[in-house]
Amino acid sequence: MLAGRMMAFPLTLTHILERARTYFPTHEVVSRRPDKSLLRHTYAQIHARSVQLARALDRLGVAKGTRVATLCWNHHAHLEAYLGVPASGRVIHTLNLRLHPTELGYIASHAEDEVVIVDRSLLPLFEKFRAEVKSIRHVIVYGDDGPVGDGYLDYEKVLAAESTEGYVFPELDENDAAMICYTSGTTGNPKGVVFSHRSMTLHTFMACSADCLGVRGSDVVFPVVPMFHAAAWGLPYATVMSGAKLIFPGPHLDAASVVELMAQEKVTLAAGVPTIWLGILALLDASPGKFDLSSVRSMLIGGSAAPPAMIEGFRVRHRLEVMHAWGMTEMSPLGTVAHLKSHMAELTDEQKLGYRSSQGFAAPFVECRHVDESGKILPWDGVTMGELEVRGPWVAQSYFGDDGADRFTKDGWFKTGDVVTLCAEGYVRITDRSKDVIKSGGEWISSVALENALMSHPAILEAAVFAGRHEKWAERPLAAVVFKTDKTATSDELRDHLAQSFAKFWLPDEYIVVQQIPRTSTGKFLKTKLRELYGDRLITG
Amino acid sequence: MLAGRMMAFPLTLTHILERARTYFPTHEVVSRRPDKSLLRHTYAQIHARSVQLARALDRLGVAKGTRVATLCWNHHAHLEAYLGVPASGRVIHTLNLRLHPTELGYIASHAEDEVVIVDRSLLPLFEKFRAEVKSIRHVIVYGDDGPVGDGYLDYEKVLAAESTEGYVFPELDENDAAMICYTSGTTGNPKGVVFSHRSMTLHTFMACSADCLGVRGSDVVFPVVPMFHAAAWGLPYATVMSGAKLIFPGPHLDAASVVELMAQEKVTLAAGVPTIWLGILALLDASPGKFDLSSVRSMLIGGSAAPPAMIEGFRVRHRLEVMHAWGMTEMSPLGTVAHLKSHMAELTDEQKLGYRSSQGFAAPFVECRHVDESGKILPWDGVTMGELEVRGPWVAQSYFGDDGADRFTKDGWFKTGDVVTLCAEGYVRITDRSKDVIKSGGEWISSVALENALMSHPAILEAAVFAGRHEKWAERPLAAVVFKTDKTATSDELRDHLAQSFAKFWLPDEYIVVQQIPRTSTGKFLKTKLRELYGDRLITG
Repeated sequence: MLAGRMMAFPLTLTHILERARTYFPTHEVVSRRPDKSLLRHTYAQIHARSVQLARALDRLGVAKGTRVATLCWNHHAHLEAYLGVPASGRVIHTLNLRLHPTELGYIASHAEDEVVIVDRSLLPLFEKFRAEVKSIRHVIVYGDDGPVGDGYLDYEKVLAAESTEGYVFPELDENDAAMICYTSGTTGNPKGVVFSHRSMTLHTFMACSADCLGVRGSDVVFPVVPMFHAAAWGLPYATVMSGAKLIFPGPHLDAASVVELMAQEKVTLAAGVPTIWLGILALLDASPGKFDLSSVRSMLIGGSAAPPAMIEGFRVRHRLEVMHAWGMTEMSPLGTVAHLKSHMAELTDEQKLGYRSSQGFAAPFVECRHVDESGKILPWDGVTMGELEVRGPWVAQSYFGDDGADRFTKDGWFKTGDVVTLCAEGYVRITDRSKDVIKSGGEWISSVALENALMSHPAILEAAVFAGRHEKWAERPLAAVVFKTDKTATSDELRDHLAQSFAKFWLPDEYIVVQQIPRTSTGKFLKTKLRELYGDRLITG
Repeated sequence: MLAGRMMAFPLTLTHILERARTYFPTHEVVSRRPDKSLLRHTYAQIHARSVQLARALDRLGVAKGTRVATLCWNHHAHLEAYLGVPASGRVIHTLNLRLHPTELGYIASHAEDEVVIVDRSLLPLFEKFRAEVKSIRHVIVYGDDGPVGDGYLDYEKVLAAESTEGYVFPELDENDAAMICYTSGTTGNPKGVVFSHRSMTLHTFMACSADCLGVRGSDVVFPVVPMFHAAAWGLPYATVMSGAKLIFPGPHLDAASVVELMAQEKVTLAAGVPTIWLGILALLDASPGKFDLSSVRSMLIGGSAAPPAMIEGFRVRHRLEVMHAWGMTEMSPLGTVAHLKSHMAELTDEQKLGYRSSQGFAAPFVECRHVDESGKILPWDGVTMGELEVRGPWVAQSYFGDDGADRFTKDGWFKTGDVVTLCAEGYVRITDRSKDVIKSGGEWISSVALENALMSHPAILEAAVFAGRHEKWAERPLAAVVFKTDKTATSDELRDHLAQSFAKFWLPDEYIVVQQIPRTSTGKFLKTKLRELYGDRLITG
């Protein structure tokens, strides 16, 4: 072979940070404080403060490769840690503040966190697991309301003690670790995904490409998705690389606060999980004309599947474009985006919605396949269900500590645990998590398809379909439904509603009315809990 | 350090080719034939034909790493070579059909080309240097007008003999060579730049990013820039990765043919050198309303500097947006793009034009600096001139055969040979090629700035400013000017015109009226020729 003769220029986040200072020094990062006031920094200031953070870590004797944890809402200091920690050769570990203290203690210990940067408002949570984590050497408290207690360092004082001048970030290998993020699995212990500078950089390029998220300098980007969820889907790095304006919501994630800030700061690209957007859609529906969201070019929805009715509600009633995407922490996280292909312009609205409410097709350099239980690769016919496997330059090769080795195939693919169909156009449609799939008499039934259909019923706020044990069929679908305020429907009505779209053997054997669906810490339906509560009723009566 | 745990998934052009087949099989590639008829292929067909080409090279015993040259206009078969040659592990070498046969013989010998794919219409040119190139084993002729002669293979027959099924492209290292392209220097021998799969892939991601070229699936991309010029600026790969429609002009590069095809195929993004666009602007000015170019979102201009008057002419008179970019073969080739930053929205039209007619600021992961003759790094003040140096993951580290080692600094930068200023915003402005800079009494004078000012004079079609030898000042500027048909101006008038913008010592000592400016094979002013013809007249009278 002949080797190329191009520079071995490393793909590191350091370049992205330096680029922002060089080309976009006056562009803004806006953070909402706990008291709802706004704090504004320029990229020049963010750069200077990232340098100060790096120097402070030097002074504290924090070695290269060491994990520096954050327990923070989305704000500028979290961004400084996103930049200064990896650029100085350490590894940022974003702790999920929604987890139970026991889980947080396990995760911080497993990652061997030595430094923790913690929001003052989250200190009570932190103190619940601090004692569990023997590796912690320094706790740095962020938040400007008075002196910190003994045993804590004050983030602002730590930074103020350092010069902003003359610092040179160390040269890094692009395969060095940049960030570690734990998956919050519903089964087994959480597992750590270790992103490299290379994978994060490539993911950033992808996020900036016109057909993925298309982050650009003229954007005003609003990551409502927490920075402790899979790098806030890569938006912070994509925004800094583009020099776009960045808006952080702080701890205020209720629909009214989010929409008000979007209107005020003229957000162009906002991103969050479906729960957030469901609340926003309800608010917009309830207060027509109150909020001017005309600056918004796209609302990115991910984390779990967006109901088609929501996507269409935004489009038809509010002229707001939803971009539906799918990914996993193990994928940095973006895997697929549900935009239409150029030849689909002539489809009907319903056909378009079909594609736009699917998980989408693979981003460049992400490869997808789905397989049956024996590992056989399945056809892309839009019908055959199988577990989705992926590979690509921003997909995990293994977990930290070599946990969960069974998630990686011998031929180099990651097993997502999602059961999907793939259509001829290559759009992925998740029909289930593999552990939630319902197997009735040897046939697979998609709980997600049934849930989406139930949620299109006018009386239903939300619905979860899960497996009930059955003596003859092994499993049968059961539905847990939450009605909207002042609305209701009979089981027969719901059954008739579903019978329009599904084969008879797919229809749930029972509709259980509940006050709320149990959820995981990241807002996903906790079906293990539903099975525990209701799974045996077909047998026990 | 802690290593990341992400997949070592190689960045290869093979993925881009496979992606087009998987996700965009029905999207089109349109090629204009020599007889002006249009030939249409789908990406599925392009993929199948690239497989056939790969298999044909296997059958011909062409080893991995071997150079496979093309001597072709822009068309589908050239694209098949762009894809099938590197994906199968060979290296495509794009021969510049504008060069003199002696140069072509040198280049093809230097690259040790073993296979040449040549357009039938270019066989007479090829035969002028074939005998020079001892390494050539196979000549494959493309073009469908009758049988080929002895000693040639017919491209279509070679492909038709191969199956399209069951072929698996070899696994490649991302640092393997993918393409070799020679720079057409005005001094010294041409030098070979060896692009790797990695550099080409990263360049493709950059070209697709919203703030660079923003190539997207809904685009109709029209590379008028030849595919034998620095990979047609990366557009073929960016278009294939995005699944956009691709339009090739074949040999028809006159303004009328180009504009007619743009209108007919509803082009959204066209790319070419300023000479092409000057002709198009003149045509549009002369035939208002004749061509519907409303589909065009951007016209990319590079290769040499676009006159501000042209950029403004398109914008004001035809509502067409010019995107001005700068690069070099050694940069794959894109280095900078002259788009405005978000905070510049409020500037006056004149100020905006100032930025948009500069070379722009660096693309992500490209780094720029400019240095004086001692190598000292200069300030970004918009005034101080120095040689531009660049580095980045798609910048050459060395030339093939280690030619031109003096172009690479010890600390890892490539010396562009361009003399520039850098302003505080980071926009590069080329004031000269380093060999064309005029040094008068120790002061540098920018020939490019004087040329742009001369070309804004209503009587002048084009102008070149170059160094004349002078006994007292060492060098003084001389101007060669070409008047528009039926227009003229006196030297005093031209001097007064320039005196509005430049210090007295910058003003040329003489205005020499010529019929045309001598040019290099790539259309750039050949100032060595001007100096040879006129450089001594200040001394010899």
